Amino acid sequence: MRTMRTASGFAAAIWIGLVVLASPVHAQTDPLPSWNDGPAKAAIVDFVARVTKDGGPDFVAPADRIATFDNDGTLWAEQPLYFQFLFAVDRVKALAPQHPDWKTEEPFRSVLAGDLKKALAGGNEAIIKLVMASHAGMTSDAFDKIVADWLASARHPALHRPYTELVYQPMLELLAYLRANGFRTYIVSGGGVEFIRSFSEKVYGIPPEQVVGSTIKTKFELRDGKPVIVRLPAVDFIDDGPGKPVAIEKFIGRRPIAAFGNSDGDLQMLQWTTAGAGPRFALIVHHTDGAREFAYDRKSSIGHLEKALDEGKARGWTIVDMKTDWKTIYPPQP
Amino acid sequence: MRTMRTASGFAAAIWIGLVVLASPVHAQTDPLPSWNDGPAKAAIVDFVARVTKDGGPDFVAPADRIATFDNDGTLWAEQPLYFQFLFAVDRVKALAPQHPDWKTEEPFRSVLAGDLKKALAGGNEAIIKLVMASHAGMTSDAFDKIVADWLASARHPALHRPYTELVYQPMLELLAYLRANGFRTYIVSGGGVEFIRSFSEKVYGIPPEQVVGSTIKTKFELRDGKPVIVRLPAVDFIDDGPGKPVAIEKFIGRRPIAAFGNSDGDLQMLQWTTAGAGPRFALIVHHTDGAREFAYDRKSSIGHLEKALDEGKARGWTIVDMKTDWKTIYPPQP
Repeated sequence: MRTMRTASGFAAAIWIGLVVLASPVHAQTDPLPSWNDGPAKAAIVDFVARVTKDGGPDFVAPADRIATFDNDGTLWAEQPLYFQFLFAVDRVKALAPQHPDWKTEEPFRSVLAGDLKKALAGGNEAIIKLVMASHAGMTSDAFDKIVADWLASARHPALHRPYTELVYQPMLELLAYLRANGFRTYIVSGGGVEFIRSFSEKVYGIPPEQVVGSTIKTKFELRDGKPVIVRLPAVDFIDDGPGKPVAIEKFIGRRPIAAFGNSDGDLQMLQWTTAGAGPRFALIVHHTDGAREFAYDRKSSIGHLEKALDEGKARGWTIVDMKTDWKTIYPPQP
Repeated sequence: MRTMRTASGFAAAIWIGLVVLASPVHAQTDPLPSWNDGPAKAAIVDFVARVTKDGGPDFVAPADRIATFDNDGTLWAEQPLYFQFLFAVDRVKALAPQHPDWKTEEPFRSVLAGDLKKALAGGNEAIIKLVMASHAGMTSDAFDKIVADWLASARHPALHRPYTELVYQPMLELLAYLRANGFRTYIVSGGGVEFIRSFSEKVYGIPPEQVVGSTIKTKFELRDGKPVIVRLPAVDFIDDGPGKPVAIEKFIGRRPIAAFGNSDGDLQMLQWTTAGAGPRFALIVHHTDGAREFAYDRKSSIGHLEKALDEGKARGWTIVDMKTDWKTIYPPQP
């Protein structure tokens, strides 16, 4: 009996082992569990199958499998305001005691009074002032720590979760799926490159060297013999709209074969990507889900989507309808 | 007899097979065959052994094994003038028929008259004029082709070999050795990023996205509905001296653990690299071999090496004495 039990236990172990081994195979048949079946999911899976089919007409060598992703509104949420702007606001509040003049100087005055709408009424000039006051004047190492501390403690004003949890679960699966198929995934964002790098590896699995973004000028200095990089209050490059293909060419030096965005700021990246030879893929995340997320496009100032939506429809780009295409929006609460 | 011969032939084949199989193992014990035994080679091998020893006190995770290399004078030769400047000269000559004004306008006049010394007497302003005339005004795709065509046909004025053959064999072995040990090898050069990318993968095994260099401004445009990136006649960023750590931070976003240069233009990159925590490695190629290559340092305008040499000696950086440390200079003629 003992021997029998052992043999039977052994057989069971083998059986369980086979089931466990079989699971990944099953998972491969649905690599995007948070995506509902539909044209968007089908288009993604079809594209990946074609470019990875060795010997097939659309095969692309792994080195050229570059996929670029916008960040705000594509990988994580961007309402009611770009999260990096909310960081700037919190930072201005924290620094206010050292800047008594801000009590009377716009846009700081409105920010400190809690009136963001009025602060933003100052347009680009106001935004740049807030960004420079919050993002410059320290070393790059010090800035990294400031951002990390903020991300660890700050909460979204409406959703009350850390910003790094307000990433789109279907997009996390898409990033992992592409990487599992030999793609290198890049962020190409209008956001600040150092801001995004402070969380991109942990949250998206995207390492610092695969993050392209807007930059302010910096300067190398020796301070008491110790080299530092100091962040200066001057815009270096805005990685948005026509700046995106320019930055892709400058930083990556290869044209992506797939690009993912959600606003008119991504239009030129999608045009540049799809104009290359061979198989190409362009996807627009359309924010259609006012119940589970936010619904906005043509009338929104944040994430304004109009030209890219029209061109995307006309050219057969994949338009994700968040409401119907996504089974879930955010990852489960940890 | 026939069977015997066959058996003996079979044994011989096995024996030869074993010898062939054994060769790579032997090669692993000398990964740098073009380096003579000495302190430079020993320092390299020791550093690589320490940072790759899992569980050792100096272990560095593969993701952080970033090594940055200057190009001119470090990976390939740079005398009598930076090769990219010789490209600019050839390009100006080729374009001269379309620019009759160049016959009287400096520095073009001197270039067309074959007097480079006089052309360079105009200093930075003259150099920028020549670079802009030769590097701007076309699309990025067109420029790639112009550079590739030039590299395929041009020959070094003294050595009569293609420029891409004037790379240092010991450094090719070093690049391969580092990559075999989990490093990612980057170029961080004062040269133009698109110029270097046109040959870096083929010649050095360094892909475009791992090349950081100087840039001119570019612009995204739709021409007859087709997206192009147009190269503009304006300097964007000079990746030299203090610009190197700035560019490393901007493009890579990680501090290298090893850096390799040959001139004062690399000093700040070496300072930035060695100032990080944990094991660090800095190497300077000292051009001491007037017989096999060129001998120059403190008095040279091209590849000027003075401060970096003094600081490197004081701080125990590895100084390669080309004459004694390198068994060969260039790869064998193909």
